Amino acid sequence: MSAAAGRNALLDELRALMAAHSPPLHALVVPSDDAHQSEYVAERDKRLQFISGFGSYHYEGGATAEKQLSDHWELMCMGEDPPVEVWIADNLSDEAVIGINPWCISVDTAQRYEHAFSKKHQTLFQLSSDLVDEVWKDRPLANTQPVVHPVEFAGCSVTGKLKELRKKLLHEKARGIIIAALDEVAWLYNIRGNDVHYSPVVHSYSIVTLHSAFFYVDNRKVSVEVQSYMSENGIDIRDYNMVQSDVSLLASGQLKGSAVNGSSHEGNGMNDNSKILIDNSCCLALYSKLDEDQVLILQSPVALSKAVKNPVELDGLRKAHIRDGVAVVQYLAWLDNQMQENYGASGYFSGAKGSQKKEHVEVKLTEVSVSDKLEGFRAAKEYFKGPSFPMISAVGPNAAILHYSPEASSCAELDTDKIYLFDTGAQYLDGTTDITRTVHFGKPSEHEKSCYTAVLKGHIALDTAVFPNGTTGHALDILARTPLWKSGLDYRHGTSHGVGSYLTVHEGPHQISFRPSARNVPLQASMTVTDEPGYYEDGSFGIRLENVLIVQDANTKFNFGDKGYLAFEHITWAPYQTKLIDATLLAPAEIEWVNTYHSDCRRILQPYLNEQEKEWLRKATEPITVSC
Amino acid sequence: MSAAAGRNALLDELRALMAAHSPPLHALVVPSDDAHQSEYVAERDKRLQFISGFGSYHYEGGATAEKQLSDHWELMCMGEDPPVEVWIADNLSDEAVIGINPWCISVDTAQRYEHAFSKKHQTLFQLSSDLVDEVWKDRPLANTQPVVHPVEFAGCSVTGKLKELRKKLLHEKARGIIIAALDEVAWLYNIRGNDVHYSPVVHSYSIVTLHSAFFYVDNRKVSVEVQSYMSENGIDIRDYNMVQSDVSLLASGQLKGSAVNGSSHEGNGMNDNSKILIDNSCCLALYSKLDEDQVLILQSPVALSKAVKNPVELDGLRKAHIRDGVAVVQYLAWLDNQMQENYGASGYFSGAKGSQKKEHVEVKLTEVSVSDKLEGFRAAKEYFKGPSFPMISAVGPNAAILHYSPEASSCAELDTDKIYLFDTGAQYLDGTTDITRTVHFGKPSEHEKSCYTAVLKGHIALDTAVFPNGTTGHALDILARTPLWKSGLDYRHGTSHGVGSYLTVHEGPHQISFRPSARNVPLQASMTVTDEPGYYEDGSFGIRLENVLIVQDANTKFNFGDKGYLAFEHITWAPYQTKLIDATLLAPAEIEWVNTYHSDCRRILQPYLNEQEKEWLRKATEPITVSC
Repeated sequence: MSAAAGRNALLDELRALMAAHSPPLHALVVPSDDAHQSEYVAERDKRLQFISGFGSYHYEGGATAEKQLSDHWELMCMGEDPPVEVWIADNLSDEAVIGINPWCISVDTAQRYEHAFSKKHQTLFQLSSDLVDEVWKDRPLANTQPVVHPVEFAGCSVTGKLKELRKKLLHEKARGIIIAALDEVAWLYNIRGNDVHYSPVVHSYSIVTLHSAFFYVDNRKVSVEVQSYMSENGIDIRDYNMVQSDVSLLASGQLKGSAVNGSSHEGNGMNDNSKILIDNSCCLALYSKLDEDQVLILQSPVALSKAVKNPVELDGLRKAHIRDGVAVVQYLAWLDNQMQENYGASGYFSGAKGSQKKEHVEVKLTEVSVSDKLEGFRAAKEYFKGPSFPMISAVGPNAAILHYSPEASSCAELDTDKIYLFDTGAQYLDGTTDITRTVHFGKPSEHEKSCYTAVLKGHIALDTAVFPNGTTGHALDILARTPLWKSGLDYRHGTSHGVGSYLTVHEGPHQISFRPSARNVPLQASMTVTDEPGYYEDGSFGIRLENVLIVQDANTKFNFGDKGYLAFEHITWAPYQTKLIDATLLAPAEIEWVNTYHSDCRRILQPYLNEQEKEWLRKATEPITVSC
Repeated sequence: MSAAAGRNALLDELRALMAAHSPPLHALVVPSDDAHQSEYVAERDKRLQFISGFGSYHYEGGATAEKQLSDHWELMCMGEDPPVEVWIADNLSDEAVIGINPWCISVDTAQRYEHAFSKKHQTLFQLSSDLVDEVWKDRPLANTQPVVHPVEFAGCSVTGKLKELRKKLLHEKARGIIIAALDEVAWLYNIRGNDVHYSPVVHSYSIVTLHSAFFYVDNRKVSVEVQSYMSENGIDIRDYNMVQSDVSLLASGQLKGSAVNGSSHEGNGMNDNSKILIDNSCCLALYSKLDEDQVLILQSPVALSKAVKNPVELDGLRKAHIRDGVAVVQYLAWLDNQMQENYGASGYFSGAKGSQKKEHVEVKLTEVSVSDKLEGFRAAKEYFKGPSFPMISAVGPNAAILHYSPEASSCAELDTDKIYLFDTGAQYLDGTTDITRTVHFGKPSEHEKSCYTAVLKGHIALDTAVFPNGTTGHALDILARTPLWKSGLDYRHGTSHGVGSYLTVHEGPHQISFRPSARNVPLQASMTVTDEPGYYEDGSFGIRLENVLIVQDANTKFNFGDKGYLAFEHITWAPYQTKLIDATLLAPAEIEWVNTYHSDCRRILQPYLNEQEKEWLRKATEPITVSC
């Protein structure tokens, strides 16, 4: 039986369960979210992929997705087709019942659904068990092995973090907070795990009150180390499945912890009417146990604390990015050599003449095989723990597909006549990395060069920006675009996201983007951001350049308005391909920026390279000349 | 009796009226607004100035204002002290009655007041007559002489404008609109007048329904010309005082006009339940005659139509700005000569050596006397009608005061050692102008030069911006600031406002600013904007450079996303003072921009100058050299 046929049988099973359910379900929403609204989810939480077979990002045009879907499925594209809740409201009859796993839907999404359903008196029914799980015979087991993340990397003890959090709770007149975001729990308690791909987090919840702290985790696999660590810090470990009932206790003021400083509410000026904080990552299952009037839905205070890195985290990030830069240079030097040997490429440096393509290729280089090699170089580095997101390794037209992730079976072969873009990152114990470079091993076209140069100008403009405290990423976004706009070019994604400290590579709450959400949080000193403008020409090529930056005080000559001014420090070290730069389009200051960056790369990375690699880097970082 | 003592007597009279009023008034709000929320108001509407003696802008620190207020008055500073309504609510007893002239307060302000007063059950009482007017014995008379603004300048007939407006009404499912903003009435009906300073408008209201149009104006002074013009265009002239009762008729669906195409509502799909449009410039007096459920408070559709100039208006604006530039150059050449002759200034061009200050000055040059001279040069130009706003003519520290307007009695004398800033504009029949230049007739300091150059860089960055359709002035604002931010400098005002076509010099609805309101309206082709960054050092000097720009299609090489891209055309022509430019701080592209602008100035203005002026302009526009 083919995979698709098998899935169609599953679909029948599922529909039988929906019919048998009381009340009978007219529709079932199968989310791709897990119970923590994680960006990357565990295999066992990929319910949509299991039932539909559709597991990849939705590409422009949806071509890839459709290929994976049997004709029992119809693909709807976000932003193009009506939203799920609107489609359901329109296409289902009055008073229809729509089933949902309340753990896998956030409060705000659920509220949006209920609003849409209300018109036709349709109801969103919270299932007590997930129907997909019932037909998922060989669903992978949970894999929970939390470990303590040492203070030498975390920079701040859990005691210190709890103290700061409780200050914020008092400030909000709140008596407790429910934390559902996995990276927030991991950061707050200084624990790490490997329950999901790419992010070293543990499936867990946290409840923190003014006097107690609770860690909800599958306690079958909690090590003695973690057990004693938690109790030393006055944190109660409870089973993952107890969080919902404990939230009910919290709501009624009866949740008592074993913390030394007692669980009485005396002397904190709080009573059981005071608020309980949640943010929009909180799922419906927990939210529905609280009285509306006691809930305070705010952006999590933990998110902001986590985003502002402490000196130890900053130091770790700098070091991790040096090791990462070494791996990228080793990779580029290796790839340059391979492209010449196997494909007769004119090479990374000589762009004047075209390549002498070989008839017969000895060793085939594919998007997947070369990115595996890059991971290999990284794996040899100290503190390496794995990739921080699905590698983007894309040749020619594939580079124009945002979030393209190649599959060994189907991916493209490298090509001496096409641009190659790689956007990859790693998790190291002392920091998370994220870098994008775009290269060409043959003779790039003038158009490719002018586009690359425009992207580089935007990349530099953001890198060198100076701005007063209070400035948001929404205001800064335009700086990376104006050089592209001059010739009518643009890109459809934001310019920047925060980066975690051995945590999620895409971290909020701040961002640099045209999206309204980028107005919410001003940039602050010691935040991390990426600097990644791009340009994508459908069906032909894509260009993106990405560094990680640290926000820092600018020490400007003047300080108008006593606001204090901020600037960026770049901590990513890998050369830009000078062959792709049209220096005549750069201002002298931009040329100087490139040359300074390149001499810094050389100085910082050389000590960790062998002779050939050093020689390659020396050539890669030769100054480009000022055009005047 | 001194002016102050006289005003104190008036205050007693006013308080007597408040006590005698039924109900007795515990407080009276005396607004500085007129019945149309105009920026500049007629003498007869300056009630606050009449009763308090305080007529000027509030300067930093409020020093100037306090000087003008007797000790019976206490100055409260906007933004520093609590807002009026908050102060009243806090300081008056429960159930206090606060009187207001309902014509001089906008809907949104009134609603804000009522909200603040509700806490203590205080009431905002709408007075049937203004108590200040009752004690204002010699209140100036209204001065209404509307004239028709010919289509050769307006570019579009009133018929065409009414047609477009009614389309927008139908689109909003509205059956009528009440227009209170004077420039909107003047624009819509192609009429002009001289009822207020600086803006050629007429005290009037307009009501437009799907079939009728009404013009409310003091009809004692309506000329035969205007009378026949209005009737030819199916517009009913009604007396200014009838607008309130007509709004009541409109509300009840009984307002009938004499328009040829009848006043029946048949065939327009509207009924008397359909909406009536107003915007926030609508006063409480009119708003309170409408049922809340029939009001649609929107940004006026007339404002946007007015902001997007037609080809005739654009052509007129270009021509008006050439004449205006000629006047400015004549002024600068004259001032340069005067400064050398009377003050021994080293002059506009030679900044190397300091000036040989004269002991005895023959002809004293003051901020007012020189700006009168500038107005003289303008007055000699075709179509000149008067200044478009109070001249800013400021020496040294005065240039750091935003909205500084000198008074002959107290203003400063020009000084060879101090920066001189002038921000002035004129009304011409074919367009409105607004220009700012900053100059020095002696030896400017290095600091003054670097600040001037940073402002110039921001001025150029905005001028040369290219951006996709849909971009708001909120996004562009940062472009004019980043060069200042690099050294920790900034300015506390927006970067740009729209400019009218022989109408208000400060025109919306768009603007380029950090203020949230700048997000409301994207820039569109054929809108006008100013480009006026600055830097102000309290107590020492101020710098601002301002040109008027027209938004136009950019014709970029590419058109990513098929959005269409926009750019600016500058239409202001007057040199920057090269002596104040530190060319080493400019990029080659910026130096080229300055030199191109200067050669354009020379080419465009020379034909209208005499020999000495030509010679002066030739020197003023000599190319600055590229530093490399």
